Amino acid sequence: IAIQDDKELQRLLNEFHYADIAEILDEVNLEEAMYVIKLLDSETTSEVLMELDEDNREKVLKNLSNKEIADEIQELDTDDAADIIAELPEERQAEVISQIADEEHKAEITELLAYDEDTAGGLMAKELVKVYETWTVAGCLRRIRAQAKDVRRVHSIYVVNKQNKLVGRLSLKDLIVAKSEQKIADIYITSVDYVKVDEDAVEVARVMQKYDLEAIPVVDENMVLLGRITIDDIVDVIRDEADKDYQLAAGISRDVEADDSIWKLTLARLPWLLIGMFGGLGAASIIEYFNESMGAFIVLLSFVPLIQATAGNVGVQSSAIIVQGLANDSIDGNILKQLLKEFLLGLVNGFAIALIGLLITHFVFGTPYIVSITIAIALITVIVMAALIGTFIPIFLNKRGIDPAVATGPFITTSNDVFGILTYFLIAKIILGF
Amino acid sequence: IAIQDDKELQRLLNEFHYADIAEILDEVNLEEAMYVIKLLDSETTSEVLMELDEDNREKVLKNLSNKEIADEIQELDTDDAADIIAELPEERQAEVISQIADEEHKAEITELLAYDEDTAGGLMAKELVKVYETWTVAGCLRRIRAQAKDVRRVHSIYVVNKQNKLVGRLSLKDLIVAKSEQKIADIYITSVDYVKVDEDAVEVARVMQKYDLEAIPVVDENMVLLGRITIDDIVDVIRDEADKDYQLAAGISRDVEADDSIWKLTLARLPWLLIGMFGGLGAASIIEYFNESMGAFIVLLSFVPLIQATAGNVGVQSSAIIVQGLANDSIDGNILKQLLKEFLLGLVNGFAIALIGLLITHFVFGTPYIVSITIAIALITVIVMAALIGTFIPIFLNKRGIDPAVATGPFITTSNDVFGILTYFLIAKIILGF
Repeated sequence: IAIQDDKELQRLLNEFHYADIAEILDEVNLEEAMYVIKLLDSETTSEVLMELDEDNREKVLKNLSNKEIADEIQELDTDDAADIIAELPEERQAEVISQIADEEHKAEITELLAYDEDTAGGLMAKELVKVYETWTVAGCLRRIRAQAKDVRRVHSIYVVNKQNKLVGRLSLKDLIVAKSEQKIADIYITSVDYVKVDEDAVEVARVMQKYDLEAIPVVDENMVLLGRITIDDIVDVIRDEADKDYQLAAGISRDVEADDSIWKLTLARLPWLLIGMFGGLGAASIIEYFNESMGAFIVLLSFVPLIQATAGNVGVQSSAIIVQGLANDSIDGNILKQLLKEFLLGLVNGFAIALIGLLITHFVFGTPYIVSITIAIALITVIVMAALIGTFIPIFLNKRGIDPAVATGPFITTSNDVFGILTYFLIAKIILGF
Repeated sequence: IAIQDDKELQRLLNEFHYADIAEILDEVNLEEAMYVIKLLDSETTSEVLMELDEDNREKVLKNLSNKEIADEIQELDTDDAADIIAELPEERQAEVISQIADEEHKAEITELLAYDEDTAGGLMAKELVKVYETWTVAGCLRRIRAQAKDVRRVHSIYVVNKQNKLVGRLSLKDLIVAKSEQKIADIYITSVDYVKVDEDAVEVARVMQKYDLEAIPVVDENMVLLGRITIDDIVDVIRDEADKDYQLAAGISRDVEADDSIWKLTLARLPWLLIGMFGGLGAASIIEYFNESMGAFIVLLSFVPLIQATAGNVGVQSSAIIVQGLANDSIDGNILKQLLKEFLLGLVNGFAIALIGLLITHFVFGTPYIVSITIAIALITVIVMAALIGTFIPIFLNKRGIDPAVATGPFITTSNDVFGILTYFLIAKIILGF
C-alpha cells in the first residue's frame, strides 16, 4: 500500500479471496482501507464489505456515496443487501434504496427490510430456483439455466403450484437423473420441510440442524413461497447464540468484542459488577449482624470465602448445564425430575467436599471439632441449595418465556453468595448456640 | 406401542422423519426402543441410529447382532458408518466390519477408521462426485448420474487429473449451463479450497466458515483427493466447541449433558469444586494471619465477600472476552495492547464501583471514612489486577498451545479470589497501619 503502485496492488488483490482482503482491511486504517476499496471491482468490493467487521463496515459506508453503496448492493444477494442497508442510519436507507437501478432487486430488498432480523424473514434470501409442477424435465432444465445464474448455490429446487404455493422439492441430482420427457409433477418429492416467515431465527436453526437441512424454504401463512434460508446463515445464528450465552454466563451483556471501545465494554460489564457489588454489600450486612453475637466463634469468619466460592461454583455449574440442556432440547422441562437429580448430585458432591473440608480445617487450621463439623454441615447444605437454585431458576425463566441464559453468571453467583453466607451463619448459630 | 399393533405402528412410523423417531426412542425404555427398531426398514433404522443420543445408541447396538449392525452400516454414508463403528468396543469393531457385504464400502470405512476423529480425516466422507479433466460435459453428465446415486447431496464436483490429484472444481450449475460438447478442462474453476487430511477439525471449521464453503475436499500431502467434508458435519464441530468452552467457563469438564448419570456428572464437576475449595481454604489462612493483628479494624472482615465477588466477576469477564476473541480470531495476539486496554477498562470500572462502595459503606454501614477509603482503594486495585490476570492467562496459554478456555471459570475465579483478598488486607495494613 505504501508504494502506491496501483496496477501492482490491483493485480495482487485479484489473487486474494474476498475474506482475506476483508481481514487485511480490518487491520489497516480507514484511509488505507478506502484506497484499497476504490481499486477493487464492484463485485469484490461488495463481498469484502459483507466480511468486514461491523464497526469498520460502518466507517467505510460513511465514506461511500449513496450511489456507490447502491452499486455495491446490486452485486449482493438480497439477504446480504438487506443486512447492509439495515445497518445504515434511517435517513440514508431510503436514499440508497432509491438509487438501486434494478427494479426487481429494489422491490425484493424493500420486502426483506420489513421483516424482523431475528425471524426467518430476516434471514431469508429471495434468490431461489422454483419450478411449476406442470413443467417437463427438459423445459425445467432450460428455465433453471436462466434462473440459476442469479443464484450462487443451488441447494434444492422448490416446486410450486399455480398459486405459487409450495408443494414439494426436487434436487438438481434428481433432475439430472430423470428422463427429459418426464413431468415435474411425476418426479418431485412431496415431503418438504419449511418454516413460516415469522418463525424465530433460533427455532429455524434448530429445525435445520435436527433434520440436517442445507436450505429451507420460507412460506407465508398461505404456504406461498417467499424465499429460502441457507445453512451458512444458520451457522452465524448458531455462533451468535453460543457467543451470547457464553457472554451472559461470564457477566457481559451481549454483543461486544475484544476490540470494541472501552466505553462500550464498560457499558456491557459494569451493570453485572454492580449486581455483584450489591450482593457483596448484602453479605457484609449479614456478617455484621451475626458478628455482634458471635463472640468466641470469630474463627467462622475466616471460612466465609470458602462457603461463598463453593456456593458460587456449584450454582454456575448447575445453571450452565440446565441452560445448555434447554438450548439443545435434551431436557424435557420436567422440573421435579431435574431438581431431584441435582439434589442427589449436590449430596454426593457435598459429602465429598465436606469430608475433605472437615479434615483440613480440623487438622491443618486447628479449629475445634464442633466448628469443623459446623463448616462441613454448612458446606453440604449450601452445595445442595446452590444446586437446586441453579437448576430451578433457568427452568422457571424458560417456562416464563425468558431466555434462561440470563440466569447464569453473576446473577446466580451473587444470589448463591448471599444465600450461602446467610445459611452458613444460621447453621452455625443453631449448632454453636451463640 | 402399548397396543402392539405392528401394522398400524409401522404405517405411523413411516410417516415420521427419522430425526423425530430418534427423539421418541430417546424417551422410551430400551425394550420398547428395540421393538420399534425391528419394525423399521433398514435404511430408516440406520438414520435413526445416527440421530440417537450416544448413550442410548450404545445400548441399542449392544442388543443388535454383528450382522444386523453391518446391515445398518451398509446404508449409511462412510463418515457416519465409521463414527458408529468407532463407538463399538474394540473387539466387536473387526467382527462388524468383516460382516459388511460391499467390499468397496468395507475398504473405505476401514480407511476412515484410521484417522483421528478430531482431524479432517475423521470428519470426511468418501462419497463425492469427481470427474477427470479430460472428459466432455456430455460424458461427464452421464457418469455423474451414476456416481450421484451414492451421494446424498451433490455440493461441488471435484476435478482431478490422471494421478487423481485435485486440480479444480465445478458446480452442478456450471455443468448444466455449459454446452454438452465442451471439455471439462475448459470450464472448470482452478481456484479450489481444500484441507489436508491431518488438519485439525476446529481449523477446518474456521476455514469453511471464513470462506462460506458448504463442502471442502480433503487431500493427502500429494494433493490426491481422499474425500470431502460437508457443512453439516462442521455445524456439529462448531456446536461442540461452543459447548465445550461454555462448560469449561462454568467449571464442568467437557462432554456431559443434563441427562447423564449422577456419577458421570460428579466426575465432571467435583474436580472444579475442589479447586474452589482449596482457594477458599487459602483465603481462610490469609484471613487468619491478618486477623491476629487487626484489632479494632475487625469490620474489614465484613467486606471480604464484596472484594471476593468483585475480583471473581471481573476476572471471568476479562478472560471470557479474550477466550472468545481468540476463538474468533479477532485478537491479534498483541499482549501489551490488550493488557493496556484492560488496565484502562479496569480503572474506569474500578473508580465507578469504588465510588459507589465508598458512599454506601460510609453512609449506610457507618464505617469510618478511613476504612471506607481503604475499601474503595482495595476495590480499584483488585478490579485492575483481576482484569489484567484475566487477560494475561488466556493469551499466555494460547501462545503455549494450550486451549485458553481452561483458564475461564473456577480456575480464574479462584486465583482472583485469593489474590483479591490478599491485596485487600495488604492495602488495609498499609493504610490503617495495624
